[in-house]
Amino acid sequence: MKELLKFNREEYRNSASEIIKARAVAEEIADKISKEGYENIFFSAVGGSLAPMMAVGEFAKELTDLPVYIEQAAELIISNNKRLNEKSVLITLSKSGDTKETVAIAKHCKEKGIRVISCTGNPESPLAKASTYVVPMKHKKGVEYEYMLLYWLFFRFLHNRGDFDKYDEFAKGLENIPQNLEKIKESFDPKAKEIASKHFDAPIQYWIGSREMWGEVYLFSMCILEEMQWIKTKSVTSPEFFHGTLELIDKDTSVFLVKSESKSRDLDERCQKFLEKYTDKLVIIDTQEYALNNFPKEFRWIVAPLICSTCLVDRLAAHFESYTGHNLDYRRYYRQFDY
Amino acid sequence: MKELLKFNREEYRNSASEIIKARAVAEEIADKISKEGYENIFFSAVGGSLAPMMAVGEFAKELTDLPVYIEQAAELIISNNKRLNEKSVLITLSKSGDTKETVAIAKHCKEKGIRVISCTGNPESPLAKASTYVVPMKHKKGVEYEYMLLYWLFFRFLHNRGDFDKYDEFAKGLENIPQNLEKIKESFDPKAKEIASKHFDAPIQYWIGSREMWGEVYLFSMCILEEMQWIKTKSVTSPEFFHGTLELIDKDTSVFLVKSESKSRDLDERCQKFLEKYTDKLVIIDTQEYALNNFPKEFRWIVAPLICSTCLVDRLAAHFESYTGHNLDYRRYYRQFDY
Repeated sequence: MKELLKFNREEYRNSASEIIKARAVAEEIADKISKEGYENIFFSAVGGSLAPMMAVGEFAKELTDLPVYIEQAAELIISNNKRLNEKSVLITLSKSGDTKETVAIAKHCKEKGIRVISCTGNPESPLAKASTYVVPMKHKKGVEYEYMLLYWLFFRFLHNRGDFDKYDEFAKGLENIPQNLEKIKESFDPKAKEIASKHFDAPIQYWIGSREMWGEVYLFSMCILEEMQWIKTKSVTSPEFFHGTLELIDKDTSVFLVKSESKSRDLDERCQKFLEKYTDKLVIIDTQEYALNNFPKEFRWIVAPLICSTCLVDRLAAHFESYTGHNLDYRRYYRQFDY
Repeated sequence: MKELLKFNREEYRNSASEIIKARAVAEEIADKISKEGYENIFFSAVGGSLAPMMAVGEFAKELTDLPVYIEQAAELIISNNKRLNEKSVLITLSKSGDTKETVAIAKHCKEKGIRVISCTGNPESPLAKASTYVVPMKHKKGVEYEYMLLYWLFFRFLHNRGDFDKYDEFAKGLENIPQNLEKIKESFDPKAKEIASKHFDAPIQYWIGSREMWGEVYLFSMCILEEMQWIKTKSVTSPEFFHGTLELIDKDTSVFLVKSESKSRDLDERCQKFLEKYTDKLVIIDTQEYALNNFPKEFRWIVAPLICSTCLVDRLAAHFESYTGHNLDYRRYYRQFDY
């Protein structure tokens, strides 16, 4: 088996087992609340933890008429949202369990008698203590594992409402995703190295994607490239690209287009057609290039963000680090002092 | 009266009269549909026309439990949104009335028996023809006029549901906003000139704001600076700034913070405190510095985006143009050919 830059295979596999063990916990919580009844679901977090929730919000639009709201935690707490009430369910996510804004919204809701489900790594954390239910999120690294927990939770809710018939097949298939992602990491790795070598010193990177892939575009550009590499980025959705950002493109502009596997692919391909003409520095990230074994084909579009995440947040970030020489763990401001 | 760079006072006043005339039309449509009944409202447009809708989406969260959805038109049309049905109302906006994606979503909805209200300047335009109702939007320039029409429409809907008691006072006050904005343009103008002179050649501009002000931050950075000035920008919300973008700030970074007049102001001030320490090139855009005559104080936070818009899209853009020498009307790609 190939050694990959900064990839700890054993740790990744152990993380998979930990997450798969939590599936039953997530499902039990969804079943209990489904029996009790609820009127809407709020997903709330900050930064990178919002990204998987953004994808869930897009699936919700197509699959259910249940109102599902995705809210930045700090904004939700100050906004006095009228739809957030005792009949709501709040789902939060923070690996460390000490993210200030996320702990605050959980506390705020629990005090108001709103059921709070938190995905978090530490059962003793402030977030866990402020929650009604905790889904243990005990992986070491990998945003894909955060998606998996949220999916088991959310799609189980939908299944219980009659909005997602093939839940069992989907949920079982999800357990096979980590093995698939290991192989995908291997295939993508040389491409990641090549991309990093060509673009690590670009004055700015443009990142584009749409709907269920947007969270990954948002996360990678802001929480990885900006925060951990101090690389300038601008991210924009594929359809909105044509309402401003397009004018900045010239032959020498580094542009990254993340293609969706859903109907949004048309929106991405409209960008691709334009970009292929006007820049020589276009990079396409297309999850469709990678096979998934033991996973139902009809749900590929739902796990595409996980494939994208493993390629970018794991592989591409590692290779950017090796070219820029900027340690991914170094911060000058973030969590260095109070602000 | 002071002459202002590229400001046609007579045209601005005529525009105000045209828009104020349309108030009754907007209200009549809202009243008719309120009587018929409806279950949710979708606001859908693209680019700059989405900005005022984003603000409306934020007001909706605080003021009503009616589901209100803000959707990019191209994404809405391909997403098969389950909540969009014959009991929905679609509100679109496009001044020209020929914006491809907006016309498409209007047609799509009308064919499905969904009531479509469009704010548009030309009653013979494809958008007008694809709509059930048209609110005439006959101003020449000024995003504030687009806000005004949307407000008379939306807050009348809320009033009819019992969610906005003081509608009459608010709606009447709105008629006095253009006169106020004329004066605000005059006060802001020297500041706009100074800002432009200091920042027109910055390698990138960071724009920050939150909730009801976010639309303006989004619009000005993308649809004006990127599209019309080819200036690089990154926009990010005040609370999300702390989850990535902050690491890019140094003493020499041009940062623009738009302050809200609602409870979100705390989120903006958290940014301000940080930014005052770490950059020497911070610009604060604070609508609270400007008086509003004959307008109820309690609704200031709702019209703050209009003040911001007139300061940025009108004044600041004009001064940027005069320093960069880049004509605001020149495009190399946008609407120059099919893409």
